[in-house]
Amino acid sequence: MIFLTRRATFSASHYYWNEAWPPKKNEEVFGRCANRNGHGHNYTLEVTVAGEPDPVTGFVIDLKCLKDVMEREVLAAFDHRHLNLEVEEFGPGKLIPTTENIAIVAWKRLQPAVKAEAGAQLSRVRVYETPDIFAEYRGGQ
Amino acid sequence: MIFLTRRATFSASHYYWNEAWPPKKNEEVFGRCANRNGHGHNYTLEVTVAGEPDPVTGFVIDLKCLKDVMEREVLAAFDHRHLNLEVEEFGPGKLIPTTENIAIVAWKRLQPAVKAEAGAQLSRVRVYETPDIFAEYRGGQ
Amino acid sequence: MIFLTRRATFSASHYYWNEAWPPKKNEEVFGRCANRNGHGHNYTLEVTVAGEPDPVTGFVIDLKCLKDVMEREVLAAFDHRHLNLEVEEFGPGKLIPTTENIAIVAWKRLQPAVKAEAGAQLSRVRVYETPDIFAEYRGGQ
Amino acid sequence: MIFLTRRATFSASHYYWNEAWPPKKNEEVFGRCANRNGHGHNYTLEVTVAGEPDPVTGFVIDLKCLKDVMEREVLAAFDHRHLNLEVEEFGPGKLIPTTENIAIVAWKRLQPAVKAEAGAQLSRVRVYETPDIFAEYRGGQ
Amino acid sequence: MIFLTRRATFSASHYYWNEAWPPKKNEEVFGRCANRNGHGHNYTLEVTVAGEPDPVTGFVIDLKCLKDVMEREVLAAFDHRHLNLEVEEFGPGKLIPTTENIAIVAWKRLQPAVKAEAGAQLSRVRVYETPDIFAEYRGGQ
Amino acid sequence: MIFLTRRATFSASHYYWNEAWPPKKNEEVFGRCANRNGHGHNYTLEVTVAGEPDPVTGFVIDLKCLKDVMEREVLAAFDHRHLNLEVEEFGPGKLIPTTENIAIVAWKRLQPAVKAEAGAQLSRVRVYETPDIFAEYRGGQ
Repeated sequence: MIFLTRRATFSASHYYWNEAWPPKKNEEVFGRCANRNGHGHNYTLEVTVAGEPDPVTGFVIDLKCLKDVMEREVLAAFDHRHLNLEVEEFGPGKLIPTTENIAIVAWKRLQPAVKAEAGAQLSRVRVYETPDIFAEYRGGQ
Repeated sequence: MIFLTRRATFSASHYYWNEAWPPKKNEEVFGRCANRNGHGHNYTLEVTVAGEPDPVTGFVIDLKCLKDVMEREVLAAFDHRHLNLEVEEFGPGKLIPTTENIAIVAWKRLQPAVKAEAGAQLSRVRVYETPDIFAEYRGGQ
Repeated sequence: MIFLTRRATFSASHYYWNEAWPPKKNEEVFGRCANRNGHGHNYTLEVTVAGEPDPVTGFVIDLKCLKDVMEREVLAAFDHRHLNLEVEEFGPGKLIPTTENIAIVAWKRLQPAVKAEAGAQLSRVRVYETPDIFAEYRGGQ
Repeated sequence: MIFLTRRATFSASHYYWNEAWPPKKNEEVFGRCANRNGHGHNYTLEVTVAGEPDPVTGFVIDLKCLKDVMEREVLAAFDHRHLNLEVEEFGPGKLIPTTENIAIVAWKRLQPAVKAEAGAQLSRVRVYETPDIFAEYRGGQ
Repeated sequence: MIFLTRRATFSASHYYWNEAWPPKKNEEVFGRCANRNGHGHNYTLEVTVAGEPDPVTGFVIDLKCLKDVMEREVLAAFDHRHLNLEVEEFGPGKLIPTTENIAIVAWKRLQPAVKAEAGAQLSRVRVYETPDIFAEYRGGQ
Repeated sequence: MIFLTRRATFSASHYYWNEAWPPKKNEEVFGRCANRNGHGHNYTLEVTVAGEPDPVTGFVIDLKCLKDVMEREVLAAFDHRHLNLEVEEFGPGKLIPTTENIAIVAWKRLQPAVKAEAGAQLSRVRVYETPDIFAEYRGGQ
């Protein structure tokens, strides 16, 4: 088994806000992240697939195909966007766009396409909010 | 002459929009950056002061003092903020918060404080929007 | 299960010396690291906790809380310190402050506090001595 | 169990070409990588060994010994070389030097020497072709 | 005056060989770089333009335009290529593709297009062969 | 004129202490850096030489020669050393080993050898104490 990883970046805005709470509680829990004007990050998306290298090509997955899937399923929707306002999964009353939830949402968007288009098994999705903070999701494992 | 540099990061949102133009022209010129919901970056602010090391301390500037000035003059105003909506210099009809203009505004905020509080000469301000794009300002030089 | 990681850095001195050995053997085994004047590194401490994101906050752990635990339990004791002379676990006749042992000691300091204060499960501690050398400890696993 | 990792870099050329295919198919599948003049990368080799720290030295493995093994088994053969033309495993009709296959070949070269010379267990080999693309092999696991 | 910089990467092969010298002298002077099979690098091209930000757009140069110029004038010719065999300036008996000469050639390719298409002044070209070795050219200055 | 740069790293201990001051003043001015047990860093030394590329070799300076000079003049004396206790220029009552002074001392050690052995002109010495703090010296300029 080989684990092959590709990274890409996207720039997005977000804020943390629980609609069920009064503003004061949002500010207590989320601090500066509760600023409703939003703030932003250069996120890094790191996608790992697992498999045996094809004996004919030496590929676990065609990296060009993986790039296309990452761009279509995640980057086109997240890059230069406001996650709370423009990405369906993070809309009002839905998921708060923490790094943890961004990793889970990216997994759910990527997994079917990686399987259908490249016949490969998604193994891990890691999202860096900054170089010093990142979340990793491995599906149901 | 020694050039001493300190880096810090801040996370902010922005968009590019010229109020004097119709939406269509803004979109043509600024592309995805014209999205009024905003998008964001982890900016790096890199501040360089020039001087002779003090023979008693070996310091061109006290780095703790430089850190305080950077935090008070720039980071407190820019970090976890929306530059267009919350930083005075980038308000409607004022400067567009391009990397170039962020560097100039940071210089103007830092230069008097570096001089007054540390007796040092600001030499260069560099702002990275991403690791691959940065602007540098050296004052009137 | 989500794995959330936070990094921090500390600057410390250390040397390698086994008190039970004569100087010559220490020099043979530890080479330049046996210099009793000490030498130093900018270490990076990378702490990973595992859990389910809280459905209300989207957090596996409050990153502010994790930062506080890391600073109190490890950084306050290690940063700008001489590990052999100022950190109890590495005192004379005790553990040699190799990267491996620093990772184990950091785990032991962090694990109870991460559990007690954040109700979270410590999953992995990684310590970089340089960008090219690092040790990872996962507790009893 | 502690996992100790050391990184090193090597600069090499390669191309992707399946001798059993006509040129047109090679170009369709491998794109610009099929250029028979070769192109190159600064590869990073990241080698992880697993074990208990020796209570006398604090070492899982002597990092100097690991460095020597990496240089002799991999870097001496790969650095400043053309992988297809000068590394036996990647010769005509053999493995295509994809990042996946380079990781597997590096594992096979390193594993016996790590065991014989350092009495340690190779745990993971990671090869970065660029900072954004890397393959990881963990032996039979 | 603002200095705006954009980075891009390309992967290429090269070797060092002076056709006027016998093989032995090439090997003495150029060491492992004289291997005629070639070896390769992930180069980073860093291009700086200088100017006043346009008061209407806040741009010194449209970064999209700069990207297009860099891709057309340098990356299309250098990326996934063998510099000695496929780039005209480095052909037999011409310039040896050292980092120094790559920087000069990139300047000569970029300068007229930066001027003609973006009305901007090229200020500096920096080429990294590895993260630890780079050459910088500032034109006739 | 081409500017060619080479980087290397060294790991060293230091502290800040002015022998002419009482302990209390040292602690006030130098804070945690006044800890006489020392603390340490992975320093990066970045050396730039300026010149015209030799038309026969394409070199401004033979990088192998520059590496040897850097190792002999600086790294052999600084790496795995305590700067205050083992480097002559930083001895008691002499220069305090601030990043500024380390850059000046490195310049003075390197400049004659770069000239004598490589016939090249030292242009700039930069010393990084951490990735976020660095000092640059350009000689008498």
